[in-house]
Amino acid sequence: MSAALAFHDRLRQAWSHSGSLICVGLDPVRSRLPAALRQSPLALRDFCCAIVEATADLVCAFKPQAAHFAAEGAEDQLASLIAFIHQRWPDVPVILDAKRSDIGATAEFYAKEAFERYNADAVTINPYLGEESIRPFLSYPGRGVALLCRTSNAGSGWLQAHPLDAPLYLRVAAAAKEWNRDGNLMLVAGATHSEELARIREAVGCMPLLVPGVGAQGGDLAQALAAGLDADRQGLIINASRSVLYAGADGNEARFEEASREAALALRREVNALRDHRGAAD
Amino acid sequence: MSAALAFHDRLRQAWSHSGSLICVGLDPVRSRLPAALRQSPLALRDFCCAIVEATADLVCAFKPQAAHFAAEGAEDQLASLIAFIHQRWPDVPVILDAKRSDIGATAEFYAKEAFERYNADAVTINPYLGEESIRPFLSYPGRGVALLCRTSNAGSGWLQAHPLDAPLYLRVAAAAKEWNRDGNLMLVAGATHSEELARIREAVGCMPLLVPGVGAQGGDLAQALAAGLDADRQGLIINASRSVLYAGADGNEARFEEASREAALALRREVNALRDHRGAAD
Repeated sequence: MSAALAFHDRLRQAWSHSGSLICVGLDPVRSRLPAALRQSPLALRDFCCAIVEATADLVCAFKPQAAHFAAEGAEDQLASLIAFIHQRWPDVPVILDAKRSDIGATAEFYAKEAFERYNADAVTINPYLGEESIRPFLSYPGRGVALLCRTSNAGSGWLQAHPLDAPLYLRVAAAAKEWNRDGNLMLVAGATHSEELARIREAVGCMPLLVPGVGAQGGDLAQALAAGLDADRQGLIINASRSVLYAGADGNEARFEEASREAALALRREVNALRDHRGAAD
Repeated sequence: MSAALAFHDRLRQAWSHSGSLICVGLDPVRSRLPAALRQSPLALRDFCCAIVEATADLVCAFKPQAAHFAAEGAEDQLASLIAFIHQRWPDVPVILDAKRSDIGATAEFYAKEAFERYNADAVTINPYLGEESIRPFLSYPGRGVALLCRTSNAGSGWLQAHPLDAPLYLRVAAAAKEWNRDGNLMLVAGATHSEELARIREAVGCMPLLVPGVGAQGGDLAQALAAGLDADRQGLIINASRSVLYAGADGNEARFEEASREAALALRREVNALRDHRGAAD
C-alpha cells in the first residue's frame, strides 16, 4: 500500500475492493490448533497463514493479536505472519492488536515496535494516558490508530460508560482498594501531581504506590514524599530512569556505572533525608 | 523470592532490607548508550546489567521498560536481564513496565507473558478495560500488579483528573474526532453495546470503527450494523476471531482452512445482507 495515502483512504479502498466489512482476528492458541500443526515450532504462524490464505478475499482487514504470540516468545512468528500478508495481499490492511500505551517518550518506542519492527498498517491503542501518548502513533504517515473507546468485554462499563462524579483516577483508586484481596495490587501515581497523590494515599490506605516522574519529568520529590508516604513512612516506590541510566552520558562514559551509582545514591540519600525529616515533623 | 509470600509482603521486605524507596527504571535507548557498548548486539542487556550491578544495593525494585526492548526486537535481552537480576539479587523485585491490558481471555496471555515468559515479580497494567482485564494478572500467587491511576505525563489530566459529566467513552470519542487531523484515527467500539455504538457514530461522523464482540462474545450483528454503519453504509471493521479461527475444531480439523473460509463467508454474507436491507430501509 502506498505510504502517501491516508490510512482512512486505504481502508475505504479495502472496503470497496473486498465488498466486505469483516476483519479476521488472528488470535492463535496453541492448544486449540489442529493436531497436525500443534507441535510444530512455527505452529502459530503456520496456522494463521493458512487462515489468511483461506479468507483473504473475504475481508477488509486482518487483526493479529500480540499477546497470543508474546506469551510464548513468538514475536518472530508474528513478524513473519504480517510480512506474509503484506507480500501476498498488499491491499489488505493489517491492524496489530497490541493495545499499547505509555508516556510520550516511551510511546515512541511502541510506535516503532508496531510500525517499523512489525510493519503493521494500524495498531490498537489505549487512551488512558491522553493525547501525548497517542501522538507518536499518529505521526507515522499512512499508518492508522484504533483507539479504545467502548470495549466489548463484560465489566468495561464500570469505567467507560457512566458519568463519573469523581475524577477517573479516584474511581480507579477506590476500585483498586476493593480489588486488592490478595495484597498484590499497587497503583501508579505520578510525582508530577502531588495533590492528587495525597488524595490517592488517602483513598487506598497503605497500598504501595509506584511513583514515576521525579527525574527527567520534573516532579517535586519533597512534595511527592509528603503526599505519598504511608503511616510507616514507606509505601512508595520512587522510580528514576533516565536520570540514573544516563548520568554518565555527559563526559563520564568510560565509568558510566559509577556515575549511575552516584546518581542513585544521591537520590536515595535525598529521599531518606526527606523521610526522616517527615518522621521528625510528625 | 518465595512464591508463597504476598507481593506486598515481599515489597515490605525489600524496603526494609534496602533502606530505600527508590526504583531504577531500565529504559535503554541504544543511541544514548556509552559508545563502547552501542554497537554490541546485546547492548541493551549489557548496559542494563551494568546499571543493575552498580545500583542493586540502593534500590527496593528494578523496573525494566518493555517498549525499549520491543522496538528493536530484543525480547530475549529483556528476558535475560530479568533472569540476571533474579539470579544475583533474588530479594529485589522486578516490575515489568509493560502497561498491558485486554479483555479477560486475552489478558491471560499477557499475564503469561509477564509472569511466565519474563518471570517478572510485578507488571504495570492499564485499567481502561475494567476488573475482568486485571483479574488474570491478580490471580498469580506471589506476583503483583501496578495499576495505572494518575500518570505522570503532561496531558494525562484530560481523562484522569477531572469529573466527567459525560461517560468516558464519549469523552474519548469527542477527543478522537479532534485528534483525527490526518485521517488516520479510528475507534474501537464493541458490538456488545449497540446503543453506545450509535452514540459513538453520532459523535464521530464517518470515522471508521473497529468492532469486536460479534462472535464468541455474543454481540448482536444486526443491532451493531444498524448502530454503526456510516452514511455510505460502510465505516465498520467487524472483527471475528475465535468463530473463524476455530470453525474447524469440532470434527473438521483436517480441512480447517475450509471450515474457516465457510465461517468468514457466512459472516460476510450476513453482514452484506443486513447492509443491503439497511440501504433499502433508508
